[in-house]
Amino acid sequence: MPVTLKEVAAKAGVSRSAVSRTFTEGASVSLKTRKKVEKAANELGYSPNALASSLTTGRTKLIGLISNNFHNPLFLEVFDLFTRSLQDRGLRPLLVNLSDETDPGNSLRMLRQYSVDGAIVASSTLSPEFSKAFRDARIPVVHSFGRFANAPYVHVVGIDNVECGRMAARSLIARGYRRIAFMGGPREATSTIDRRTGFLEVANASDGIEVSESYATAYSFAAGRTEMQRLLKQDRADAYFCGDDVLSIGALSAIESANLRVPEDIGVIGLNDMEMARWENINLTTIRQPISQIISSSIELIVAALDDPERHPEARLFACEIVERGTLRPTQ
Amino acid sequence: MPVTLKEVAAKAGVSRSAVSRTFTEGASVSLKTRKKVEKAANELGYSPNALASSLTTGRTKLIGLISNNFHNPLFLEVFDLFTRSLQDRGLRPLLVNLSDETDPGNSLRMLRQYSVDGAIVASSTLSPEFSKAFRDARIPVVHSFGRFANAPYVHVVGIDNVECGRMAARSLIARGYRRIAFMGGPREATSTIDRRTGFLEVANASDGIEVSESYATAYSFAAGRTEMQRLLKQDRADAYFCGDDVLSIGALSAIESANLRVPEDIGVIGLNDMEMARWENINLTTIRQPISQIISSSIELIVAALDDPERHPEARLFACEIVERGTLRPTQ
Repeated sequence: MPVTLKEVAAKAGVSRSAVSRTFTEGASVSLKTRKKVEKAANELGYSPNALASSLTTGRTKLIGLISNNFHNPLFLEVFDLFTRSLQDRGLRPLLVNLSDETDPGNSLRMLRQYSVDGAIVASSTLSPEFSKAFRDARIPVVHSFGRFANAPYVHVVGIDNVECGRMAARSLIARGYRRIAFMGGPREATSTIDRRTGFLEVANASDGIEVSESYATAYSFAAGRTEMQRLLKQDRADAYFCGDDVLSIGALSAIESANLRVPEDIGVIGLNDMEMARWENINLTTIRQPISQIISSSIELIVAALDDPERHPEARLFACEIVERGTLRPTQ
Repeated sequence: MPVTLKEVAAKAGVSRSAVSRTFTEGASVSLKTRKKVEKAANELGYSPNALASSLTTGRTKLIGLISNNFHNPLFLEVFDLFTRSLQDRGLRPLLVNLSDETDPGNSLRMLRQYSVDGAIVASSTLSPEFSKAFRDARIPVVHSFGRFANAPYVHVVGIDNVECGRMAARSLIARGYRRIAFMGGPREATSTIDRRTGFLEVANASDGIEVSESYATAYSFAAGRTEMQRLLKQDRADAYFCGDDVLSIGALSAIESANLRVPEDIGVIGLNDMEMARWENINLTTIRQPISQIISSSIELIVAALDDPERHPEARLFACEIVERGTLRPTQ
């Protein structure tokens, strides 16, 4: 059976209240008493129960970590960084998988049941209704990898996807590609919509550039491969801006199976710069978003929001950069 | 503010105790009252607090999901399947990242603080001391992807890694490879130790077979690539059994960079059959372990252990099979 507060008090020779105060943040206790209690607690293997203490502090230190894409290897990095950083701050991630979920009400119930202190939505494909539902339920929420807004309705940390679309188009044009295309992720994802907007804006404003667009059904390898297979049966483009890295890797697989060469026959540029993009047998030219900065900033923001739930929604925006590897021809 | 039980009682026109009983599993309440309460709860958006009710039921419905490898894409599939299955059963995964943790005491404190009902250790590289520490703390534990034992000390669900090593060696020999090698994961991982044992047993018992062995520092792409680069500078083998799929993919990358052909110059066989092994630009011949069966069985077992903490430790073992793809020559 777990060691009780009473046993620690007996061993330390102090009152139960002294033990309780030792383990309550901000409560007053003399250094001498604290030392006695900590010694006894260590010897007995006692750890204060975060859930029981939540009844007095109103804090569970649980943070809902919400995602809906477990087919994009990017999220393994994302989970790793989030779980480490939360643990370092004494917070604990309650992982919520909304892969098949379309009802914000259900996810809200899951979070409420566990009285999470806050929620981090790590997704660009989850509808903004989810974040709004959490906000309306007064659960502090940070939308990581969400859409930047001038007047954000929840805290959001991410990149300017419109600008990334522009960067991709400029980059393809600078390399002499003339028939360029956007192969986006799911049509309804804000990331897809914004990347498309920037890409078409630059392409349409450039002389002699032919531009086309299409969409994969998900940010996944299989969806990228399927969509590129379809495209290769048609009048194909010279270079593709694929909505993200995992779509790019799926597209590269289809191109390779069709015995076409990259970058000679077709160029590909991705977005994210996830670990796999650096793998030598992938070697993907891509637009890097600063994943670890986005995550540490998201955690700072959720911690600030826990301390001040009335804090005005804030949007934090990070610059991106092109990482040159092997899937585009050199600049001409 | 969250809706309270009192408000639900007022709206439904019933006692607070009636509301409480409606949301307590196994408690008695008339159908008529239950309907009134559920209607009021839905209208108000009330959800019973799992943590508050844990004080009476002694159950938090939190399950610690413990891992220490966030560089192996296999674990994204593992997390997806675990989180979905736990959610389907009304349980919630508290994700614990032990990437840099060597002290079972620390991880035990994390689990105790949250009064988890049980723990699933999803790792073959985490020392058995972790599972033992949880067991000794009377936290029901299932070690998924752990080492099979005839007299298990905790519940374990996995495969016979010794037999997998034998399968790999037989498979290489049947294809006419004569200089064969084991490129394992971390030396201290039970999966590495067992796969090596089976591999060497068959290789050493076969005539005319030359066998060698080496180890990567982790089950990761980078470790597999680094180790294969080192091997290629020496007197290399004709075919390698790499400890798992992600190591294999790292090894393939090094082989490709050295301008050697697979399977003509070097053969590679992996283990796991994770999603990426099926990707057409990887197309890895591998030994499939039934990942989704291992996970659903692990969840059945943890649920059974919650109901009966005194249950004797049980080991569940699943058969594996070779999946033929493009990284080994055909059988001769």
